[in-house]
Parts: sequence; C-alpha cells; structure tokens
Amino acid sequence: MNIDYALLTDLYQITMAQGYWQSGKNATEACFHMYFRDYPFKGGFAVACGMAQLAELVDTFAFSEEDRAYLASLDAPGGGKLFDPAFLEQLADYHLSVDIDAVPEGTVVFPHEPLVRVTGPITDCQLIETALLNCVNFETLIATKAARVCLAAGSPVAEFGLRRAQGAAGGVWASRAAVVGGCASTSNVLAGKLFGVPVSGTHAHSWVMSFPDELTAFRAYAEAFPKNCILLVDTYDVEQGVKNAITVGLEMRERGERLAGIRIDSGDLAWLAKMARRMLDEAGLTDCGIVLSNDLDEYTIQSIHDEGAQVMSWGVGTKLACAFDQPTLGGVYKLSATREPGEATWRDRLKISESAAKLTTPGVLDVRRYYHDDGRIAGDMVFDVNTGVGEREIIVDPSDDLRQKRLSGKRFETLLAPLAREGRTVLPAAGRDAMVARERAAAQLAMLDESQKRMLNPHTYPVGLEYGLFERRRELVARMRGIA
Amino acid sequence: MNIDYALLTDLYQITMAQGYWQSGKNATEACFHMYFRDYPFKGGFAVACGMAQLAELVDTFAFSEEDRAYLASLDAPGGGKLFDPAFLEQLADYHLSVDIDAVPEGTVVFPHEPLVRVTGPITDCQLIETALLNCVNFETLIATKAARVCLAAGSPVAEFGLRRAQGAAGGVWASRAAVVGGCASTSNVLAGKLFGVPVSGTHAHSWVMSFPDELTAFRAYAEAFPKNCILLVDTYDVEQGVKNAITVGLEMRERGERLAGIRIDSGDLAWLAKMARRMLDEAGLTDCGIVLSNDLDEYTIQSIHDEGAQVMSWGVGTKLACAFDQPTLGGVYKLSATREPGEATWRDRLKISESAAKLTTPGVLDVRRYYHDDGRIAGDMVFDVNTGVGEREIIVDPSDDLRQKRLSGKRFETLLAPLAREGRTVLPAAGRDAMVARERAAAQLAMLDESQKRMLNPHTYPVGLEYGLFERRRELVARMRGIA
Repeated sequence: MNIDYALLTDLYQITMAQGYWQSGKNATEACFHMYFRDYPFKGGFAVACGMAQLAELVDTFAFSEEDRAYLASLDAPGGGKLFDPAFLEQLADYHLSVDIDAVPEGTVVFPHEPLVRVTGPITDCQLIETALLNCVNFETLIATKAARVCLAAGSPVAEFGLRRAQGAAGGVWASRAAVVGGCASTSNVLAGKLFGVPVSGTHAHSWVMSFPDELTAFRAYAEAFPKNCILLVDTYDVEQGVKNAITVGLEMRERGERLAGIRIDSGDLAWLAKMARRMLDEAGLTDCGIVLSNDLDEYTIQSIHDEGAQVMSWGVGTKLACAFDQPTLGGVYKLSATREPGEATWRDRLKISESAAKLTTPGVLDVRRYYHDDGRIAGDMVFDVNTGVGEREIIVDPSDDLRQKRLSGKRFETLLAPLAREGRTVLPAAGRDAMVARERAAAQLAMLDESQKRMLNPHTYPVGLEYGLFERRRELVARMRGIA
Repeated sequence: MNIDYALLTDLYQITMAQGYWQSGKNATEACFHMYFRDYPFKGGFAVACGMAQLAELVDTFAFSEEDRAYLASLDAPGGGKLFDPAFLEQLADYHLSVDIDAVPEGTVVFPHEPLVRVTGPITDCQLIETALLNCVNFETLIATKAARVCLAAGSPVAEFGLRRAQGAAGGVWASRAAVVGGCASTSNVLAGKLFGVPVSGTHAHSWVMSFPDELTAFRAYAEAFPKNCILLVDTYDVEQGVKNAITVGLEMRERGERLAGIRIDSGDLAWLAKMARRMLDEAGLTDCGIVLSNDLDEYTIQSIHDEGAQVMSWGVGTKLACAFDQPTLGGVYKLSATREPGEATWRDRLKISESAAKLTTPGVLDVRRYYHDDGRIAGDMVFDVNTGVGEREIIVDPSDDLRQKRLSGKRFETLLAPLAREGRTVLPAAGRDAMVARERAAAQLAMLDESQKRMLNPHTYPVGLEYGLFERRRELVARMRGIA
C-alpha cells in the first residue's frame, strides 16, 4: 500500500513550514516527543507499536510534482494563492534530515514517557508530526487491546475485525498490531502478505446457506479442506449443527482425517460451548476443539472462562480491530527544546496549561527502565540526556510530586533506540518484523507484576521524572507564570 | 493510495471460493445485501457513504502474480498447502462479474434497508464482502457523525482528526466522509488532493513556542499569511493571548489586512469565547471571528451554543474522525437468495437466529422512499423487486409486526442505483464526487422532520418490509423451525 506520507498531514504543518521558511527560522533545530498521558482501557500498561510504519514514512517521504501542483492550486481564504511558489519549489528536493529515536515495537510502555523522540530542523519535525501520531497512536492502541484480550484468553486468539475496522489501511496495520500484541493470527490476508504474520480462516454462514442443507454444506467443506476444517455450527440451530458436525467428524475419522474444531458465533457462548463439548466427547471426538466468536473482548472472554468452558481458540473482531471501548490513544507530540544555529546547548520549551496534566516536559529526553533482581521491572525514569541523572536516582510522579521513588543500585537500561539518523532509517530488519515485536511484547509482559496486568484497577507502575528534571520544570513554570 | 482489494479480505472468503470451485458451485448466483440494524449514535438517521471507494474496489480488483504467490505459500493447519494450485491458477485472470446496486453517497438511510445489493456468482459476492463492509461501514459511520456535529454547530465545521484517526487510509477516507456529512473542510491535505474536498489550517502551539514570545510569533505568522490568519491564543494564557492577537489585528488593519480570527483550544471554551468576543469588540475588531476546538462533539457544541457563545467556526478532531462514542456501524452483508444455472427464479435464503433482530430478509431487495406532499419523507419500504409491491402499499416494522403503516397514494422513488454491471462500474462521475454527495446529504437532511434530527431520543422514522415480503419471511421461518 503506497501512502503519500508527505501529504498525509494537517494543512497547518505545511503553512507553518512556509512560515518558518519565510521567517528564516527553518535552520532552528527542535526536539519533539510523542507520549500519551493516560493508560488506555483503564489498564496498567500499553504495548508500543507503529515504529515499522514510521520507518516506512521516513523511507518514502517526498513531495511529488503532483503534490506540489496540488499545493500550488490552493487558495488563501482571504484571496490569492495560499502558498508562495518559491516555497513550493524548494519542496521539490526536500529531504528529511531529522534524527528519530523510538522504543522498539512490542516494548511495554507507560504514560508520560516518550515513545518517540524527533530532533532536527523544526520544519522536518512538524511535517512528520501528523502521520507519526496517526500510526503510533493507533497501532499502540490496538497492540495494547490485543495484549489485554490475549492475557484474558490464555488460548490462541485469531483477529478478524477487518470488516469493522476504520478503513483499509487502518484494518491492515490494525491486524499487524494485533499480532504484535499477542494474537496468534489474523483473518486479514493483505496483512499476512505485507507483514508475514500468520493468517487463518475457514468458512462463513453463507457457505452453509448456499447449500440445500447444513449437513451437505459441512460435507462439502470437509472434502474441500480436510486439513483446515473448522465447521461453523450456528447458522440454523446450534444443537443440530453440532450433531451434523459430529456426523462429518466421524466420517472424516473413517477417512483418516480430522475435524479440527467447531465454531459457535452466536447465542450464550459459555452455555453452548459446554453443551457442545459434552456432545463431542460423547461421540468420541475429544480431539475436536471449540472455537468461540461474536463480539468478544477481554471481559466477555474472562467471564466465559469463569464459567468453566473449554475453549481451543477465540475469534475476536470488532471490539479489537477498532478498540471499541476506547477508539483512540490520545497520544501527543510536543515541542520540548529548541536550538538556534551555532548554539551548543538546547533551550527548554514548555507549554503551560490550565490543566496540570497537560503541562509538557522540557529537554531532550530518554527513559531508563530499572529492574528488580528477579527480572520484574521496578520503575521508569524520564531523564534529560544532556543533563543526565542525579546520583540518588529519584523519580517524581509528574501528577503528584509527593510520590517519589529511589531507584539507585538497580540494574537499568535506556528505552529509546535509533530509528533514523539525518533523515535515513537505521532500524535493523528485526526492528520492522512483527513477529520479533510479538516476542518482545510477550517477554516484557512477563516482566510485569501480575497486579499490573489486572483488567480492572491494576496496580500503578512507578514512572516519574528524574528529580533534577522535575525541579527544573517546576522552576520554569514558576518563571513563566511570573511567580518565581 | 493503491490498495490491493483482492487481498483486503478475510482468509475464509478465499477458502470458501476454493470450496465453491471444488464443489462445482461457482456457477451458483447469489444475492447479498449490506445493511445495518441499529441507528448509530442513538440518533434518528444515518448518511450513506463509501460507494466511491466501493467503485474503486470494482475498478481495480485483481489477483496479481505476487498475490497468488503469497496464497500459494500458505500452509494448511493440518499439514500440506492450504490452496490447490489449479484453483490459484484460475485466479490469474479472475474478473468480477457481479452487478452492484447502491444508494448514492449522501443518501439519508435507516436500519434494515439495503445500502448495497450485490448479485452474481457467489464467489464474486464473497470475495468483495470484507472490503465492501469495511468501506461502507466506516464511511457511513463518519458521514453520520459529521452530519450530527454539523447540525449542532450551525456555523462551519473543520475536520482535523487525522492524528487520532485509525490508520492512514482510515484517516483519508474519514476526512472525505466528514465532508460528505457536512463539514466545510478538513485539515487532511491528502484527502484534499485525492478527493477535491476543501482543506484548511493555520498554525499550532509549537509555532508560538518556537519563538521567543507569543507576540513575536503572532507577528511572524501574520506577516507570512496575511490572507489566512487565525491566531491560536492559548499556548500560555488565553487572556494575554487575546491581547496579543488584538495588537497584531490592529497592526494588520493599519496595513489594510485583516485578522480573520482567533482560535481557543483549551479551557472552558464557552466562558473564554465570551470573554474573547468582548475584548475583540472593545478593541474594534468586530470582524475577527472566534474558532473553538478541543475534544468537541455534537453535545459539547450544543452546550456551548446554549451558553450564548458566538462562534465563527469549529474544529472537530478525535471525536469525529474515529466516531469516539461508537467506533463502528456494525453493518452486515447477508445472503438472501440463490439461483442455480438455468433457473429462472431466485430461491429465498434465510439465516434464523436466537435473536429476532438478527433474522435476515429473503429475496432480491430494493427500497421505496415515500414523500409527504410538503416534501418531507414519509416512510421507507423494503420490497422484493421480483415479486413487487402489494396494492395497499403497507409496511410492517420487522422488529414489531404490530407497527404497520399504509403508504399508498404518496409519491415515491426507489433508492438503489446501478454502481456496477457485470463487474464493471457504471457509476457516473458525479456518483464519486464528494461535494455532490455533500449537497445530496444536505438536501436529504432538510427533508427529515426536525423531530428525527434531535440528538437524544429522536422520533423514529417509519421503515418496514412490504407486507407480502413480511408474510413470506414469517412463513419461511415457521417452515425452517418446523412449526408451519
């Protein structure tokens, strides 16, 4: 899917670019961070995703002749053309020259810490903002939702929400993100082709309806796909459907084949799954599994488990592919420092706001993740790479400065890794591989305490600003409000 | 944006295609309808959209060599390859040959009536199902949300949700759908280029933050864009921001230019808008408008109106671009009739279900829309094009058969129009034009009674099955359940 990332942006990024160009400010260097403020789904973690698409953006970013012709055609609301032809002309050989650092896909992340840092010419930083937010916000959201669903499921989850996804590319990248978050497969064939993620699927109700009767339809499917046979038993009546599936399952066994499973897609799933299990077992088809689908999410899956249904695998669509209960992550991309040509040091930038939660953090930031001796993660520290970390290694919760934690003495690593240097991607191939990211997510989720993976009211993981950074931010706010 | 629609599908559509091919059923003709069951956003109408993308799908549908190689690479879960090489070979010159009829984009539509009808080889019908649902579900959802927001707003609405949209293509088609639903413009430059919809935008907080102070930033923007100058006044402090904007507005007036507006993007918008209006008026800048943004939807806009704020235009992002309060329409695509080769008449197909609401409607369907003499719409009748409409022209509510309405004597028209014939699009150019669809939506919303456009608890518009069709469906259900 070729996406024209140069125009996949808000118009104001391009008007600002012209403004910077006209004001001679395009040599100004800037530092922006992308982060989110609130845990998605009221959970205790998020799974970062979207960096492979971000790398695609960096690789392909260019204003084509057609793009420039389109921009040249735009009128200003007050009359005349919106853009200066001389500005558009220099877009012809416009190359990104930013450095981008990002957490690897599959990394478990928390509010207030940078997932992506962009440094370089302010115009570059702005021109990629919208597309960067679009992909990291959305894919992190879906990977996180998938992780929650898979934690609840225990057994494999197939994602099949494309028909309810928000648009074609949304659906394709959503399917990839779902696999990164833990899904075993997707129904989305294009995602399979583009990203090498496993695909799965058998048949729909319409298959059954297109035959004179259900048994004939089941037999025809078993004949066509003896090695991929899961029969959907709820087109007319589940009990009769299971009986027909048993008939076919026994016929397959006669032929040395195996009915892999039956799928139930409506009704009271827990009750029907238990009934079907009993019927299959009584018929001797103990190796025929049960697949459940129909509007599932982490909560319904949990409740079906609680009732003791034995489920081989799950199909999850709508509620996952569009993150039904919270369809957006709300991640932001904020300017935190600038540097004029010739200057050696960065100048802090801060947006103050009526709401304390929306206050930004100044500086050029990275994250240190500290570990307990047993491998569980202990706390994350947001720090300024230029001023470094104070000796005591204390973090302060930015939304409650009485919550502080000392992390010194613990093993740590930093989270941001190079994704691009001077406008060229430096991400290794593994950095774009969905299956590598999936393994990382699984490994990192295993380092979280169980209490932090609880669906409701999870334990809050300690994330804070490095003490010196916290103090610096407080002084800056006081100075800007004139109360220092 | 080139989308590979042939693979933008659930895997089971392709396994079923092979199954039909192997069972010699691929000559069977089928009829499917796409419809939704519940009003989105608990409102009283929906605005159909997605048909331009559906036409794009029909125009470009093909299995490339690369696509076939990918399918050939897939393993069956039980061992061996999933697909038969002979089946894949005939995909090489696979051409759609379906007929598609759809309501034109911008048509006001209601639950239970077909938005799209697909007739032709059953394999074709299945292969396009997922992508068809993806685009019609999503775009109808967004066009409907936009219509609600615009009805509440009264003054122009700019859509700028791309950064929170679900994926790139989702964002692009969402922006188009938002304009179809009534938005005056979008911030999404790529949508502007691809679909010829108006784009708008000025500057962000980062523009202000990148200058030494706000006044310098405002002056620089006014100088760069005297014909497109709307100043964002809430980076540090709204009251001071308005004062700085007034300074620049008066300077612009001196130069014979005009400050078009100021934008407020945080805080108590109603209160701040009234304060800003007062300050602007006192300074003599009565022609400088106020633009509001920040997490707006139809409800917050309504409440700001109720408090008497004077608003020139609105910027609506997240809540619109991903339809925050209901991120999916839930539209379905159901088989309703089949016809074997050589047969003259269609055979009814029905999926019965534990839930009455999920019962499908058999036949080859269209919709008659009846009008009152004053031009308001009076009722919609779903009827079978082959059996026609009974003399009394009675509709029966499919979810409550005691609700019936006689429509005879009223002027009517049918809603479905040809989109493709034998696999080729026949949609006129105007049928793909977002601005034509936008006009249609506006005209059709004007034909709805005010009570049906209410945000909460709207009056339900009469939509039902033609009496004979209703009776036929009832008999079919009884026969299938063995109670006839």
